[in-house]
Amino acid sequence: MLYLIGLGLGDKTDITIKGLELIKKSKRVYLESYTSIYCQDDRNDLETFYGCEIIPADREFVELNSDEILLNADNEDVAFLVVGDPLGATTHADLILRAKEKRIPYRLVHNASIINACGCCGLQLYNFGEVVSIPLWTETWRPTSFVDKINSNLKRGLHTLCLLDIKVKEQSIEAMMKGRKEYEPPRFMTINIAAKQLLDSLKELQCNQDDLQENNLLLTEETLCVALARVGSEKQLIRKSSLKNLLEIDMGPPLHSLIIVGRLHHIESEMLKLFD
Amino acid sequence: MLYLIGLGLGDKTDITIKGLELIKKSKRVYLESYTSIYCQDDRNDLETFYGCEIIPADREFVELNSDEILLNADNEDVAFLVVGDPLGATTHADLILRAKEKRIPYRLVHNASIINACGCCGLQLYNFGEVVSIPLWTETWRPTSFVDKINSNLKRGLHTLCLLDIKVKEQSIEAMMKGRKEYEPPRFMTINIAAKQLLDSLKELQCNQDDLQENNLLLTEETLCVALARVGSEKQLIRKSSLKNLLEIDMGPPLHSLIIVGRLHHIESEMLKLFD
Repeated sequence: MLYLIGLGLGDKTDITIKGLELIKKSKRVYLESYTSIYCQDDRNDLETFYGCEIIPADREFVELNSDEILLNADNEDVAFLVVGDPLGATTHADLILRAKEKRIPYRLVHNASIINACGCCGLQLYNFGEVVSIPLWTETWRPTSFVDKINSNLKRGLHTLCLLDIKVKEQSIEAMMKGRKEYEPPRFMTINIAAKQLLDSLKELQCNQDDLQENNLLLTEETLCVALARVGSEKQLIRKSSLKNLLEIDMGPPLHSLIIVGRLHHIESEMLKLFD
Repeated sequence: MLYLIGLGLGDKTDITIKGLELIKKSKRVYLESYTSIYCQDDRNDLETFYGCEIIPADREFVELNSDEILLNADNEDVAFLVVGDPLGATTHADLILRAKEKRIPYRLVHNASIINACGCCGLQLYNFGEVVSIPLWTETWRPTSFVDKINSNLKRGLHTLCLLDIKVKEQSIEAMMKGRKEYEPPRFMTINIAAKQLLDSLKELQCNQDDLQENNLLLTEETLCVALARVGSEKQLIRKSSLKNLLEIDMGPPLHSLIIVGRLHHIESEMLKLFD
């Protein structure tokens, strides 16, 4: 059996009893390390806590070595651990499909993900629209499509959870061209970078006034935002601020997430005051 | 300290290690029983598993007796347990605000909720729009506003998670008028009732053709849906069907949830085939 087990968001004690029991009876345990990370515990801490060896699985490993992960999983138990909930990222749907091809049964063990835990700031999950991913811009690649989605949500009065990019074990273009297995240091998008990209996108969209739809006017530098860092951990931090002022805010170490606030209901306003 | 602890969705082993440790050190433990339920384990099972007494807390209790729940919580630990994630329902924001008034510190222990666990059907959480609640209609109260929200999502190609109504310990109108503390048996909206209300709403909206906006044409009786039952438990069931055919589907005991499918991406189509 292939177990895809969510680890939750904070630290090693955020695993469920069910998840821990399944890890203990698994023959091999993999830890996916490229869609999210714990902010406190690393692989060594987890090995001690679970009492077993953990095989790190980066994107390349999962994409190229899924046969190895699934080896004998029709006869023995294999655990694939994911920080958050196991089905937040498309890649793991891929692993399930490969298991199915090989007639290997699978089971999901759910846990909290930022998609629901972002409710910790007091905004109601019922009032969120489509989730948005903000990718780290490069010198030559500066997409702004996330602004359209945020505006569509704002038009309906809905909040937007923005997931900020994570780059773990990415090859530099130079290394790729030279065919070298050299990787850049991990990068986690901060709230500041996210705010900068959003503000730059707004400027760019305002330059193309002719293309401007009614939609595009909703997000402004004054829009209320909630900055979240290390949600679910003891070092969690929640701050509210205008988009503009997020440029200067210091949210500390990763992971950061950002909420663009839509229409506030009374109880949401009261809850947000907790973070004044 | 007031701990609001999510229990996850399936059974007693879906609690996190962190949550269980905090329950064990709490002086009093309440179980909220009106926004969601476990499909397998009841309060007795939980008492045995946690090794402590659990005080049931229905809506009336939480709304009227929050002082009792918070009693001495500035000096001792009190746990308030919620199936799913602790901040899915507004009522618990209320409890936090009351704690804050009394200068009682609180802490959230997150867990899976249907909001993220619905990804088990293979639809990507990134492709969901606003969540919709479908209330049980009465003879005189038949709101159809959920159709507007579903249509707004469909217009953008997004899926809609529909949360189906739960009525636990509700007074009948007769009992209310007589001032009697008599309650109706618990009712959980099935997929069949949800489909019936959606189809009836469509008929009603089509009768008012003049008010019809472009939006209102998107949801039809042929729209693809995914029916979910008992998500996260061993008795989980996932079926796909047109809205029309949901009228006849048998999803078994509660809880049920419904997804109205928007634009399918390739990997989502592949994943949905798992449930053919």
